[in-house]
Amino acid sequence: MSIIEKLSSLLPPDRMSTHADHLAVASRDESTLEGVTPLAIVWATSTDDVRNIVKLCLDESTPITTRGAGSALEGSTIPLANGIVIDLSRMTEVLAFWPDDLQVRVQPGIIYDNLNEYLKREGLFFPPSPGGSGDVATVGGMVSTNASGIYSVKYGGTRDYVLQMEIVTGTGELMKLGNRAVKRSSGYNLVDLVSGSEGTLAIITAVTLRLAGLPEGRLQTAFKFSRETDAARAVSEMRKYGLDVAAIEFLDRRVMQALNSLKGYGLEEVPALFLEFHGPEQVLTSNSELAETICREMGGSELTLGEGQRPWEIRHFVTDAVKYRKSGYAIIRNDVAFPISSLPEIVDYCYRLGDENDLLIHTFGHVGLGLLHALILAKREDTRQWQRATDVSDLIIRRTIELDGTISGEHGIGLGHKSLFELEHGSSVELMRKIKRQFDPRNILNPGKIFDM
Amino acid sequence: MSIIEKLSSLLPPDRMSTHADHLAVASRDESTLEGVTPLAIVWATSTDDVRNIVKLCLDESTPITTRGAGSALEGSTIPLANGIVIDLSRMTEVLAFWPDDLQVRVQPGIIYDNLNEYLKREGLFFPPSPGGSGDVATVGGMVSTNASGIYSVKYGGTRDYVLQMEIVTGTGELMKLGNRAVKRSSGYNLVDLVSGSEGTLAIITAVTLRLAGLPEGRLQTAFKFSRETDAARAVSEMRKYGLDVAAIEFLDRRVMQALNSLKGYGLEEVPALFLEFHGPEQVLTSNSELAETICREMGGSELTLGEGQRPWEIRHFVTDAVKYRKSGYAIIRNDVAFPISSLPEIVDYCYRLGDENDLLIHTFGHVGLGLLHALILAKREDTRQWQRATDVSDLIIRRTIELDGTISGEHGIGLGHKSLFELEHGSSVELMRKIKRQFDPRNILNPGKIFDM
Repeated sequence: MSIIEKLSSLLPPDRMSTHADHLAVASRDESTLEGVTPLAIVWATSTDDVRNIVKLCLDESTPITTRGAGSALEGSTIPLANGIVIDLSRMTEVLAFWPDDLQVRVQPGIIYDNLNEYLKREGLFFPPSPGGSGDVATVGGMVSTNASGIYSVKYGGTRDYVLQMEIVTGTGELMKLGNRAVKRSSGYNLVDLVSGSEGTLAIITAVTLRLAGLPEGRLQTAFKFSRETDAARAVSEMRKYGLDVAAIEFLDRRVMQALNSLKGYGLEEVPALFLEFHGPEQVLTSNSELAETICREMGGSELTLGEGQRPWEIRHFVTDAVKYRKSGYAIIRNDVAFPISSLPEIVDYCYRLGDENDLLIHTFGHVGLGLLHALILAKREDTRQWQRATDVSDLIIRRTIELDGTISGEHGIGLGHKSLFELEHGSSVELMRKIKRQFDPRNILNPGKIFDM
Repeated sequence: MSIIEKLSSLLPPDRMSTHADHLAVASRDESTLEGVTPLAIVWATSTDDVRNIVKLCLDESTPITTRGAGSALEGSTIPLANGIVIDLSRMTEVLAFWPDDLQVRVQPGIIYDNLNEYLKREGLFFPPSPGGSGDVATVGGMVSTNASGIYSVKYGGTRDYVLQMEIVTGTGELMKLGNRAVKRSSGYNLVDLVSGSEGTLAIITAVTLRLAGLPEGRLQTAFKFSRETDAARAVSEMRKYGLDVAAIEFLDRRVMQALNSLKGYGLEEVPALFLEFHGPEQVLTSNSELAETICREMGGSELTLGEGQRPWEIRHFVTDAVKYRKSGYAIIRNDVAFPISSLPEIVDYCYRLGDENDLLIHTFGHVGLGLLHALILAKREDTRQWQRATDVSDLIIRRTIELDGTISGEHGIGLGHKSLFELEHGSSVELMRKIKRQFDPRNILNPGKIFDM
């Protein structure tokens, strides 16, 4: 019997498909990478489903790629041609909720915004808002890529909120990792090992998350600077000061230009910082006053937005503004992270590379965490230019690694940045391979992602 | 040639000793556990030393126990009779300091208070103040046990501050783990795996730490409650509210009694919370007012301390107060952590067990993180009573595990709590063993700690 036949006998008809339309969706993610059509897609609805499917694929040595919303940006959810896709988007239950402990246990397929809608009634939320994709991103996907967002400066990334997991390993073994204590010194931290492993170590079938209290109030401000250097110095000064700030977003002068040309905002075309503060009234006031003092010390001043213009609405349109700036052009994106003091150098380097290669490059990101996205515009059809843009993106990553930064601050390695992974991690990659073998001896869990075995 | 002879040929005379006095010191830690005399103690002063010693011990299959200050509380640094001790307390250099990035790179032997003294000049500090032992605890030891302290509620534990490590594995291989980006999604999180592994996976020869800005101001307050339940509810309410509080310490009524009898403080003998807030003036005021409102809602009221009595001075004497409450008695300590809502139940359970077994039990701890220390008084010479006290301590841990908590919130497992480790972690212990083998195939790094191979 073929794997398809065995899967059909294992699952009801509505939970397994080889239909071209279904396989087409399962073949790709939100990256610009080529899709790969798998043998089949299956929808698991329980932990037992996952175990049975894994055991079946183990016998057949069939690769499994786990999928949530498919909103990954580096190909982490692109399957193999001889493999299947386990789609967990139907596992959306809240399994337990402990408001007094600020904890919730959920199935991996629950969507970020839906979870927060559920938590709202108790005045709680799961903070790491994943950029513009909170309406699609699943908790399982966020955990698997250690996703973050604008509020991670104050609240941390997804990994910081994962207390406990139920996982199925590559041998089909069910395991409980971690517990509900928020601080622990009890053996090896396997929870943080599986978080961010992009489905290569285990399939997560349940997650217990810490939560935070919804802020009583919010205040947003924006500041402009004449030089990227000054914006960067303002950011590190705010961190040094221990300023309680919820979001620090950087938009370079070119992003401001792009926003103006797409939306006609009439923004001043200078480097800007968008800030948000959380807390009760008095705290908001005092913290925003401190931020203003710091920005002024660094030569910044308030950026006044037009009637009804809101910072996060503007921020939301950054990628579109860049994408549509030149018709027929696509974006090559990267996701580097580095010590904050390197921000000016890396921004300058991006500009210089752009000029030298006749490419338009924009930079923005959660700089409070040292994250920067460089968006490079290029024509897919112009293979020479597309290659040049790809090379430039690699150069930006190489420079970041030289400055002791990382290839990926929040998107993961997937297939997109495998080639530079060893450059960042050196001999520890071999150790990662050895660790993967302990979870997945037959290498059936999302093989070929992050690194090759 | 014996291992001793080989070590002497490798190291200058002043860096290797088999002298009874030196071995006596190296034989134990700060726990009540029996010491074990090693073959020798060596003082490494460089990464190369560590590598050479490990390679030598690898050839001889000689167990190595790494030691910093020896202030561990669960026997993590108690060596083996056929093993040696590598003492890193002479590796105290600050290797690099990046104030604008809020980062520092240090050798593992640097003492916590000395590091903070060094960082002060730039208005920075390394937050996880390890209880009363900051004057002896080394950074390497703190990382190896994922130590925490009173400020971990606001700032997190040691693991949250480790960005990068240089390690020597059990095969003598030198590896760099992590980088200087504070947020990353780049492969497996090996840094957080080695943090808290109590010297069983690798020897840490350098650490890059994140830092925080020294608070502009501090404010301390204390509240009293009629029932432990109310104190616990006040704590979870503060967390829910997202209150920016730096420390939340719980002292039960018996600890208050003990403090009165040791120091004559004349404290009200009721459950109390000691709080500290960090920030600029206005923030301090508004946050402490919010805390007071919350505590009052839960039936609490301000605890007025006597002339010149300071909360942390009082807190500092807790262990002594309990230890000296009954002459000739020693303390059996534990270090459980659990979801905050379990605090009342666990405190009651401790009291009940004490009554049933004619033992005096006190509870206190960093309850903002769900950490509780139960101190059980017993006479060492009275073997029956000592055994009863040990059994009661185990019962408290077992109950904590039933409530989905952990054996150890901040001290580690070491030798002291090995027996219950599998009860907490189930089948994932076998996975931990497999992972250890990848770092330390010959099992020479601190064998027998946390779990047996």
